[in-house]
Amino acid sequence: MTDSAAPPSPAPSPAPTPAPGNDTVFGRILRGEIPCDQVYADDLCLAFRDVQPQAPVHVLVIPRDPIARLDEAGAEHGALLGHLLLVAALVAREEGLSGFRTVINSGAEAGQTVFHLHVHVIGGRPLAWPPG
Amino acid sequence: MTDSAAPPSPAPSPAPTPAPGNDTVFGRILRGEIPCDQVYADDLCLAFRDVQPQAPVHVLVIPRDPIARLDEAGAEHGALLGHLLLVAALVAREEGLSGFRTVINSGAEAGQTVFHLHVHVIGGRPLAWPPG
Repeated sequence: MTDSAAPPSPAPSPAPTPAPGNDTVFGRILRGEIPCDQVYADDLCLAFRDVQPQAPVHVLVIPRDPIARLDEAGAEHGALLGHLLLVAALVAREEGLSGFRTVINSGAEAGQTVFHLHVHVIGGRPLAWPPG
Repeated sequence: MTDSAAPPSPAPSPAPTPAPGNDTVFGRILRGEIPCDQVYADDLCLAFRDVQPQAPVHVLVIPRDPIARLDEAGAEHGALLGHLLLVAALVAREEGLSGFRTVINSGAEAGQTVFHLHVHVIGGRPLAWPPG
C-alpha cells in the first residue's frame, strides 16, 4: 500500500500580493480585500464613503500610493496631493454640494486613526468653526 | 492777474497696480498693502498667522495665484495645490507640531469667508471630531 490514500496535498496557493510595510484597512480596500462604497476611482486614487459619516456627505479620497501621513509626503508627491484635492472637489460637485470642507489629519494628535493619507470631504449640513 | 494764484494741481499719481477682479484682503496682503505675521514665503505661496486663531498654531497658506475657491481650481492647478499642502506640512514642522490638521473651506456654506483659496494649518491643542 502506498500512501496514495493520504489526503491529497492542497494545491500550492499563489503567493498573496505582499502588503507594504505600512499596510492598513485602506490598503486592504485598495486591493479589493474588503469592500467599500466607492464613489470615484482612477489610476492615482480611490474615493469612497466614510463608514462613520459625520455629515450627509462624508467621502474619503485616498492615494493608491501608501503615503502614511501628510508630513511624510515629499516634493515628489506634490502633483499627487493636488490631484487628491481636485478629486475632492469633483466628488463634492457630483454629490450636488455647493459648499464643502476638506480635512486632512496628520498624526494621532490631530485625530488620524488610519495611517494611509486620506482627505475627508464633508458637506450637506452647516459646518461649525473651529473645525474641531 | 493770471490764474497762477490758483492752487497748484496735484502731481498726477502713478496708476495703482490694478487688483484682479476677485481681489480680497489676501490679495492686499500679497501685494504688501496690509501687513501680516508671515511665517513662510516662496514664489508660489505665502503663509501667515490667522488673525483669529482657533488654536495655538493657526496658519493660513495661500497661493499667489488668486484662485477663489477649491472648486474653481482646474487640472492646471494640481501641482500648485499639492505645493500648498507640502508647505502646510513644512510650516507645521517648523512650528514644532507632531500632529496638525489642514482644512480648506470651499464656499460660504462651508464657512469660507475670504474668496481667495487658503489652507488652514491648525495644531497645538487636542482637535475634536467632527471637524465642525
